[in-house]
Amino acid sequence: MLMPQVHQSLYPSKTSLILPKPRIYSHSHASSLVPSRSSFTKTKRNGRVGYKTSNNVKAIATEFPVQLTKLKANVTVKRNDGSKRKRSDRTSGTLRLELVFADLDPREERSLTGIIIYERASQAGQADDDVLYEAEVEVPRDYGEVGAVFVTNEQSEEMFIKEIVLDGSPHHGRVLLTCQAWVGFQQKRLFFTNKSTYLPDKTPSGLRRLRQDELVNLRGNCQGERKKGDRIYDYDVYNDLGDPDSPSDLRPVLGGKKLPYPRRCRTGRPRSKEEPSMETRSKYIYVPQDEEFSITKQKSFHERKGLEIVHSLLPALQTGSDAEAKFPYFTAIDVLFNEGINLPSAQPERTGSWMQKALEVVRKAKDGLRFETPQVMKRDRFCWFSDEEFARQTLAGVNPSSIQLVTEWPLRSKLDPEIYGAPKSAITDEMIEEEIKGFMTVDEAVKQKKLFILDYHDLLLPFVRQVRELGSATLYGSRTLFFLTPQGTLRPLAIELTRPQMDGNPQWKKVFRPTWKSTDVWLWRLAKANVLAHDSCYHQLITHWLRTHCATEPYVIAANRQLSAMHPIYRLLHPHFRYTMEINAEARNSLINAGGTIESTFSTGKYSMELSSVIYDKQWRFDHQGLPRDLISRGMAIEDPSSPHGLKLAVEDYPYANDGLELWAIIKKWVSDYVNHYYPEASLIESDSELLAWWEEVRTVGHGDKKDEPWWPELKTPQDLIEIITTIVWVASGHHAAVNFGQYAYAGYFPNRPTITRLKMPNEDPKDEDWKLFLEKPVEILLETFPSQLQAATVMVALSVLSEHSPDEEYLGEKIQPVWAEDPVIRSYFEIFHGSLVKLEGIIDGKNADENFVNRHGAGVMPYELLKPFSKPGITGQGVPYSISI
Amino acid sequence: MLMPQVHQSLYPSKTSLILPKPRIYSHSHASSLVPSRSSFTKTKRNGRVGYKTSNNVKAIATEFPVQLTKLKANVTVKRNDGSKRKRSDRTSGTLRLELVFADLDPREERSLTGIIIYERASQAGQADDDVLYEAEVEVPRDYGEVGAVFVTNEQSEEMFIKEIVLDGSPHHGRVLLTCQAWVGFQQKRLFFTNKSTYLPDKTPSGLRRLRQDELVNLRGNCQGERKKGDRIYDYDVYNDLGDPDSPSDLRPVLGGKKLPYPRRCRTGRPRSKEEPSMETRSKYIYVPQDEEFSITKQKSFHERKGLEIVHSLLPALQTGSDAEAKFPYFTAIDVLFNEGINLPSAQPERTGSWMQKALEVVRKAKDGLRFETPQVMKRDRFCWFSDEEFARQTLAGVNPSSIQLVTEWPLRSKLDPEIYGAPKSAITDEMIEEEIKGFMTVDEAVKQKKLFILDYHDLLLPFVRQVRELGSATLYGSRTLFFLTPQGTLRPLAIELTRPQMDGNPQWKKVFRPTWKSTDVWLWRLAKANVLAHDSCYHQLITHWLRTHCATEPYVIAANRQLSAMHPIYRLLHPHFRYTMEINAEARNSLINAGGTIESTFSTGKYSMELSSVIYDKQWRFDHQGLPRDLISRGMAIEDPSSPHGLKLAVEDYPYANDGLELWAIIKKWVSDYVNHYYPEASLIESDSELLAWWEEVRTVGHGDKKDEPWWPELKTPQDLIEIITTIVWVASGHHAAVNFGQYAYAGYFPNRPTITRLKMPNEDPKDEDWKLFLEKPVEILLETFPSQLQAATVMVALSVLSEHSPDEEYLGEKIQPVWAEDPVIRSYFEIFHGSLVKLEGIIDGKNADENFVNRHGAGVMPYELLKPFSKPGITGQGVPYSISI
Repeated sequence: MLMPQVHQSLYPSKTSLILPKPRIYSHSHASSLVPSRSSFTKTKRNGRVGYKTSNNVKAIATEFPVQLTKLKANVTVKRNDGSKRKRSDRTSGTLRLELVFADLDPREERSLTGIIIYERASQAGQADDDVLYEAEVEVPRDYGEVGAVFVTNEQSEEMFIKEIVLDGSPHHGRVLLTCQAWVGFQQKRLFFTNKSTYLPDKTPSGLRRLRQDELVNLRGNCQGERKKGDRIYDYDVYNDLGDPDSPSDLRPVLGGKKLPYPRRCRTGRPRSKEEPSMETRSKYIYVPQDEEFSITKQKSFHERKGLEIVHSLLPALQTGSDAEAKFPYFTAIDVLFNEGINLPSAQPERTGSWMQKALEVVRKAKDGLRFETPQVMKRDRFCWFSDEEFARQTLAGVNPSSIQLVTEWPLRSKLDPEIYGAPKSAITDEMIEEEIKGFMTVDEAVKQKKLFILDYHDLLLPFVRQVRELGSATLYGSRTLFFLTPQGTLRPLAIELTRPQMDGNPQWKKVFRPTWKSTDVWLWRLAKANVLAHDSCYHQLITHWLRTHCATEPYVIAANRQLSAMHPIYRLLHPHFRYTMEINAEARNSLINAGGTIESTFSTGKYSMELSSVIYDKQWRFDHQGLPRDLISRGMAIEDPSSPHGLKLAVEDYPYANDGLELWAIIKKWVSDYVNHYYPEASLIESDSELLAWWEEVRTVGHGDKKDEPWWPELKTPQDLIEIITTIVWVASGHHAAVNFGQYAYAGYFPNRPTITRLKMPNEDPKDEDWKLFLEKPVEILLETFPSQLQAATVMVALSVLSEHSPDEEYLGEKIQPVWAEDPVIRSYFEIFHGSLVKLEGIIDGKNADENFVNRHGAGVMPYELLKPFSKPGITGQGVPYSISI
Repeated sequence: MLMPQVHQSLYPSKTSLILPKPRIYSHSHASSLVPSRSSFTKTKRNGRVGYKTSNNVKAIATEFPVQLTKLKANVTVKRNDGSKRKRSDRTSGTLRLELVFADLDPREERSLTGIIIYERASQAGQADDDVLYEAEVEVPRDYGEVGAVFVTNEQSEEMFIKEIVLDGSPHHGRVLLTCQAWVGFQQKRLFFTNKSTYLPDKTPSGLRRLRQDELVNLRGNCQGERKKGDRIYDYDVYNDLGDPDSPSDLRPVLGGKKLPYPRRCRTGRPRSKEEPSMETRSKYIYVPQDEEFSITKQKSFHERKGLEIVHSLLPALQTGSDAEAKFPYFTAIDVLFNEGINLPSAQPERTGSWMQKALEVVRKAKDGLRFETPQVMKRDRFCWFSDEEFARQTLAGVNPSSIQLVTEWPLRSKLDPEIYGAPKSAITDEMIEEEIKGFMTVDEAVKQKKLFILDYHDLLLPFVRQVRELGSATLYGSRTLFFLTPQGTLRPLAIELTRPQMDGNPQWKKVFRPTWKSTDVWLWRLAKANVLAHDSCYHQLITHWLRTHCATEPYVIAANRQLSAMHPIYRLLHPHFRYTMEINAEARNSLINAGGTIESTFSTGKYSMELSSVIYDKQWRFDHQGLPRDLISRGMAIEDPSSPHGLKLAVEDYPYANDGLELWAIIKKWVSDYVNHYYPEASLIESDSELLAWWEEVRTVGHGDKKDEPWWPELKTPQDLIEIITTIVWVASGHHAAVNFGQYAYAGYFPNRPTITRLKMPNEDPKDEDWKLFLEKPVEILLETFPSQLQAATVMVALSVLSEHSPDEEYLGEKIQPVWAEDPVIRSYFEIFHGSLVKLEGIIDGKNADENFVNRHGAGVMPYELLKPFSKPGITGQGVPYSISI
């Protein structure tokens, strides 16, 4: 790590200024050399800013004898390595570097920018995947610090600049610029030095204008279609999910009064003529240049999507086969995995399914490829079948933030009875007491906080009719009730499934219970499958997509528009925003779009995104996104100063909450240290125009459909800021990791977590022959209820992509960000942060090995590792990356 | 069917006697022609009886002109059809027939036997599988009825005589002799006519001596080794199970004071010199000639045993492989069956197990052979996993007669605490009330008869140490407690496993419960597997082998020794004894012998038969073998005149008892009608020397180790006889069918009913690494606990043999026995019997289709059909044969 440089002299001494070789320009001069693609040029064309030619500098050069020193500039460029950006290996040619000094030249009264000296860098060597460029720049000894560098790519293709090091002069020290950015052909990019972390008011004079101008550039003008290489951050509604050219793929616009939604990145594609509210689709979805995947990440993502061979094969394979075909036997599911008997590769006709064929192709393509056995199946291939695991996964599974305390009894719906029927739940005291009377009465259970619920009743009921009309899935409103046993585990007591009145039939409402009668046992199992599908929908659409990916995108956009890259909060948040916009664009392209993976494999079908909008409207509030408030809002915790983290949990052994609160506290400590370092006084917040603008924009634009909500936290004090930042960081790191990286482990064996139920319950208005089939072969009914082969495989592929850490994954607090390392105080805070995370690893391992933690330790139980901070690449079920990047 | 002939003239008229062609002999004359193998000759050699030459007959023939009539004799002989008895197709040559008239010749004062006329029959044609022989015999018109026929096989090979019909004479009517018997080369056999059903005192004069002599013949002299073709019925102890030539295969003698046991058929093989208590083994195990399988039965049995290809292959396949190898994955079990993915036949190395190789061989041998999917798996492949099915199978499974009412609480052992430790059960009120308090307290449950138990505690505990020392299995004493739910189903509450103090360790005793904590859930599953192994052992050794096969053999031997073939009770019981001795001999040969299938695949190992002796001693009593008393003895019913069948069941929906009581009543009605027909007065019983001798011998010889028990029913009245016969018939038909023909259906998928548990419970004095493995991969532990691949396959083969009906299976009451058909009254009774059984089929179907019968109807539930009277051949899980023949 680099030793931080102490800012020694704000103004250069005037004693020894000579200007021999180095070419010095004012910025405006430089900008005139930049081709039209450069953002600077555009900025200029916008006519809002301009730079004076620095005649004075030239005057000085001739007037005074300046003492020069040699600065060596090393630029590291990532080599082309076969990513999607096809480029030749000719990383030759030159880069033009313009060093901008932090301070204004005191001799140029009207100057707005520090002195700029330029030089060309040439290829000087190669190391591993990198190409090194070198230049020697002679600069006046007393010119003070370099605060920024312009890089102009004079080669024929875009390149990825990793970093720039200025070194060699004892007078200037070692100056580092961590760029990690694409620079297009003849594009000119501005990079601030790592050391340049300033609140707006404290920006060195020579950089102030650049800081402002760069933000202006990034905000753009809200016009026209965004093109690859653009760097503009702007907002739009979700009007790009449907396909206006296909009547069946029209989707309502999300965002606005009717269907409130967070904003996405504006791409500016043309609107459809037929459906003017909708944007036309294209294969390329714009994201600002700096948001694009790194080459390594791209490689990993696309290799993994190599599994998408299967996916891309599917439509073809359906031809002549049955796209809705269920798995004929359970054995046919089991053999998809490495475990068990190998598939007979020589005889594809034996099973004859498309899946077999698909796997054949994949096997040929990639020797021996098979789905990895999901961890849950490896540990206990029957866990999907058991009630205690069904309950345990509400606390330690992939969707651990839906379970809530029952606070009112009896349960009742808040929906309009005129439309949805009698609001009272069919679950009676008697039913519950048959199960728990050995311990207590229902009243006691409610009072003693022993009853919990997974409540998808009022959320799903309004969608039942529509979804069923699609014909490809069933849906119910559902409530699942649990009892907290004296052992500290949850025990499912009842599932209530409700269908509203529809098609002339009255409301249908049934309670299913773990029971001792075969028919009821099978109905219970099928009811569980339905609840799991509801939970899968909620998890994927809300817990995962809406609360992390979707809600975070506006923070990213606003930060880039309002916070300078020099801003300490920008620099704090930056790693937490890595790749989020790109992965969201990918999602809009093929995951959440009309006919995409979600719609074709989840119960809610084409209404999936609409549902996420409805729930955004009903449930999402920023102040509940932090873990403690989230827990409190669900009744899973109450404030209690005497408890660790100030919270007393309703379920003590709640792995997600236990580890999550540890992690939350660690993050909060780090954020507090960082924030307090830059805002030693509360007044600094109120005077930080960038920060306030950012928060204002998050609230009123990015999440503008919620702008009038009373719960938005104020931003007046460092405490406010700490809470806001901790929340954002938590969502991007801990929350996302907890709900994402376990997806393959838990749902890769889909019987444990089907995404869809395709058949209504056998006892809902059954036909005689259907009921007979159910009695004779309930497993057939279950297989028919489960996802089709096609859906299951699609989901397996998708989840394996989502659950995989890229080899260049950046884990929370694992390595210090170079910009943080520049400040020794921040560095020491980081070291505390890092140390706490290392310690957390041990704490988590300890709990998983402790038999007292029955919800994460036990026979066949997957240890709860989703919040273990670090991980190896691949599908590990561990590791908390900084950001939402998959 | 034949109309019965009314006996018109006891003595022939003397008016028209001529004796031209037919050769007439006194019996003694005839016997002199018989070669030494004939039993008659033997009888003679024994010197106990003899016949005078009938000089008087000759005198009559010359003195009086007799009117002759022609009797056509047709003999149907079963063709050789490739059974194990290898014979050429030359069924040519002749049969010598000697017709014995029922009445003594009044002109021969000292005659002991009716007049005998002989003729040779020659081959006259073929029909299907039969060869017909024909003779014409001229007999005096007034000679009255033919009462018996001697048949001498004058051909070079043994033959199977199906029947003899004497016909053509209006004076003698049609006379039928249903023989169904082997007759050896030059052997002479006596057959009584079907019509000749007589109590001893009512035997026609001409047949009396034959009746007595034949019994003397059959009883033999208790000397020497019995050879194939012999017909002697005698007793011996089970001293033939071990192999005296192999030290590891020595087994204690069963039968006697130390190890009481029913007697088996004496084979008279030489005793071992080293182990004089033991008989030496040989491949051939003698059974009396008439007890051997029919050709069809043999064919079916041996074809089915063709599956034994697998079995016979096993030892070879073990070489170089691991005989104790567990199944590596559940999938490896599943693919054994037709369902699911086919095995990759071209790549045996892929699974590499011996099973694969074995199946390969079988596949080659018999195109496409695979284990049939057991019904229980076809219906619901997960039923083995579920607690309610575990409980249901105690009422409707293959061992439905072990479940009993809990009458004392708390539970306690009656074993010596010094040896076996504290007698009090570890199951507490608290544990039970946690489960049932929603319904009632433990006290109330006991009082209201809601608690039931599967109690293998005191029976198995004394064997635990020995069995464990063998090293190939584990064993515990076990108690499994159930609660009768308001729905009428059983719900398992707790399993207690006990290990006595051993190897310096104290008693180990643990209670396992259905629970909501993963480790405990898996322990519960493993505890269930142990209980199932206990139940399998008890079922196979006691419920099946001891109570049916083993206990019945003495009835068969005694009946053949003491009841003439003319005796109405012999004729009533005869179909119920078909093949029992042969199948028992087969069992002693390869099933229950030292190192046989039972010992190598059941938990109790080499102590299996000893256990059955101990339980015979402790539990078996004749008066509890009938279903009503059996139910009462287990607390599963009380007498209640107002209930159907006079019994009120503790579990109303108890399929085995429900159908069994129907069947019991039907059998009892038939037996009553039959008995009352032949014993219209009680005194007839007391004067029936054969009957009394039979019952005396059953009690004091066949079951002689129990001869002093007070519970033996007296035999003084027809009611006594009805109860005794109904019990014997029930055991041979209903009870055996219920516990045998469902074996493959229920246990063919062995996870549902493992025969052995090989690993002790993970929480019994665990080593750290074992406990860790259990936590990490409980399924591995389950697979390791289960039977090895070798054991599983052996059992599957054995059960598929046991569960199959032969194509010539004779079902209870399906077809009338020809001897019964001779009497129109008996025939009408039989028609009632048959009609009731047909009706029972409908009743059973009705119950299985009725959702109120939750223990036999429901999703994935196998309908209870084991007591449906009739069946097709094969593994059908239906059909109640007359006898124990498999």
